[in-house]
Amino acid sequence: MRTVDEGTGMSSSSLPSPSGATLPPLERQSFRDGMAKLAAAVNIITSIGGNGRCGFTASAVCSVTDSPPTLLVCVNKNSQSHAVITTSQVLCVNTMAGPHEEISMAFAGGVKDMNARFAVGEWTTLVTGAPVLKEATVAFDCRVTQVAEVGTHDVVFCEVLAIHEGGSKDGLVYFGRKFHRLG
Amino acid sequence: MRTVDEGTGMSSSSLPSPSGATLPPLERQSFRDGMAKLAAAVNIITSIGGNGRCGFTASAVCSVTDSPPTLLVCVNKNSQSHAVITTSQVLCVNTMAGPHEEISMAFAGGVKDMNARFAVGEWTTLVTGAPVLKEATVAFDCRVTQVAEVGTHDVVFCEVLAIHEGGSKDGLVYFGRKFHRLG
Repeated sequence: MRTVDEGTGMSSSSLPSPSGATLPPLERQSFRDGMAKLAAAVNIITSIGGNGRCGFTASAVCSVTDSPPTLLVCVNKNSQSHAVITTSQVLCVNTMAGPHEEISMAFAGGVKDMNARFAVGEWTTLVTGAPVLKEATVAFDCRVTQVAEVGTHDVVFCEVLAIHEGGSKDGLVYFGRKFHRLG
Repeated sequence: MRTVDEGTGMSSSSLPSPSGATLPPLERQSFRDGMAKLAAAVNIITSIGGNGRCGFTASAVCSVTDSPPTLLVCVNKNSQSHAVITTSQVLCVNTMAGPHEEISMAFAGGVKDMNARFAVGEWTTLVTGAPVLKEATVAFDCRVTQVAEVGTHDVVFCEVLAIHEGGSKDGLVYFGRKFHRLG
């Protein structure tokens, strides 16, 4: 789901193997193939900046702690949304419902123009001004509290300020390089 | 899935609302109810220390970057496994397959004794010595490279050194406070 570009920083491992030989680094493709088997919810991460709304599809989102309510989102440092989020310090995690394959593909890059991505679906706002998809299974309106840099990505920690539930009881999951509906 | 205890650190938000009033912090229960709608793969995180093997069930795992191959795991600072992982600096993420509800419940606290948890399933090791469940959908053998402290939890970033695929094509997901099988 997430496109991952060339990395920077962080040296490769050279942990000795039991025989004492140095291990070669894991192949990038092996890692991707393995990660394809880790099921994940499909989310659209949105933000708002001086040039308007932006958003991208992401599966690398998870809960961190409820004290205070905090989640994290992994954001490619080369992405357009990264610049907006690090400036505005706000974002919304919109968790997709079963029928949201099309909008998920649009925000995954199927539609290039940021404004055009928002032509599909009905959008509102809660507290921060970041776009909230009305029919999302759940939407978490957040402010950024902390960032950890890891290679090509920033891991953005966010305090959840408000939640919207769209009324859908099902979810959309990406697993085995396919969408799956959960009900 | 993950139990989250009392928090420390990190102040509550007091972002002004559009009317200028200060927003109350989000209720912990509202956050938990919202997070129950974010589907996630079920994993058993294992490690090895001076007192032997340990492990716990976690849904807060995600891919970070493939340069170098890196994932993250959120670990409660009060947990027994936290002490082992921060000392040994190794862990294995074992991603559960469809039939793994019982073992997932054992490692979620259904079985208290660490050694007894490993009585179910066949276990092996790859590079680091952390336990690898042979029949996991996929297992990521890792060394810790970086830790970010966020309230009650440490977010542990890990370089993936080796991968095992157990031959299963299905996955186990937690959503709406229930297990779901994906195939």
